[in-house]
Amino acid sequence: MDRQDLENYLHEHIPLSAAMQAHIDVLKHERVVISAPLEPNINHRETVFGGSASTLATLAAWTLVHSSLKRLELDARVVIQKHTMTYDKPITDRFEAVCDRPAEDKWQRFLSMLQRRGRGRIHVQASLNCQGQNVGQFGGDFVAIKS
Amino acid sequence: MDRQDLENYLHEHIPLSAAMQAHIDVLKHERVVISAPLEPNINHRETVFGGSASTLATLAAWTLVHSSLKRLELDARVVIQKHTMTYDKPITDRFEAVCDRPAEDKWQRFLSMLQRRGRGRIHVQASLNCQGQNVGQFGGDFVAIKS
Repeated sequence: MDRQDLENYLHEHIPLSAAMQAHIDVLKHERVVISAPLEPNINHRETVFGGSASTLATLAAWTLVHSSLKRLELDARVVIQKHTMTYDKPITDRFEAVCDRPAEDKWQRFLSMLQRRGRGRIHVQASLNCQGQNVGQFGGDFVAIKS
Repeated sequence: MDRQDLENYLHEHIPLSAAMQAHIDVLKHERVVISAPLEPNINHRETVFGGSASTLATLAAWTLVHSSLKRLELDARVVIQKHTMTYDKPITDRFEAVCDRPAEDKWQRFLSMLQRRGRGRIHVQASLNCQGQNVGQFGGDFVAIKS
C-alpha cells in the first residue's frame, strides 16, 4: 500500500482529515506517523485544539490497523469502540501522532480471533509529539469485522 | 452571552469547528447543545467519523464551562486535561452533543477552588445523540486557570 494513495483515500473519504491537512509521514508494517500543521488546527489560545489532537491520534491508530489488515489481504472494516486521551502539554507547532503496532502476541491473538470468529478486538496506543517532545497520549480499542 | 456570538467566536478561533459546521443549538446556564451535519463529518463507511464525534463532544463540554464562567464574569482560560469517549452506535445523520452542568456541589467546589487558588478542576460529561438515540458518551476533565 502506497503512502500517498492512502493519504488521498483519507482526504477523500474523511473530509475532516483534509480540513486538518493530515499528512501521512510513515506508513510501515510496525509504525504509522501522521502529522498536521498548527494553522487549520489552532484554537482560541493559538495552540492546537484538543479535538484536532485527539482526531490525529485516532487517524494514526485507525490507519495502522486498517493498513496492516490490507497488507495481509484481510478484508475487514475497522471501527473504534472507545478511547482515552490525555493532553499533557500545549501544542504550539506542527504536531504528529506516532502509532506503533501492539506487541506481537496481542497482534497475533487479534488476527486469530478475526480469522476464526470474523471479529477481533485490539487496543492501540499513539503518542502525540511536537518539537521533539511528547505532548499527549492516546489509547483506543478498535474492532475489526470481516467483510 | 449570545448563542450566535459564541458560535461565531468558535468558528473564527477554532477553524475545525467551522469545517465541521458545528452549530450551537442551546446555550444555557445548565445545558449546552451543539450539533453538526453528517456530510462534513462523514467517514469511509458513510457514518460520522469518530474524530468528529469526539470533537463535537469536546466542544460542547468546553463551551459549557467557558460560558458559565463568562456569565459569572470570571476571567479564566479553560483547558482540557484528559477525556474518555465511547462510541456506542454508528452515527448515520445529523448528530448533537448534549452537555449538562455537573451536580451543584461539584460545580460550587470548582468555583470555590478557582476563586481561592486561581485554579479549579471539573469533570464534565456529554452525550452524543442521533435521531433521538444515544450513540456515544464523553467524559472530560477540564482545568480553569484564572487570567
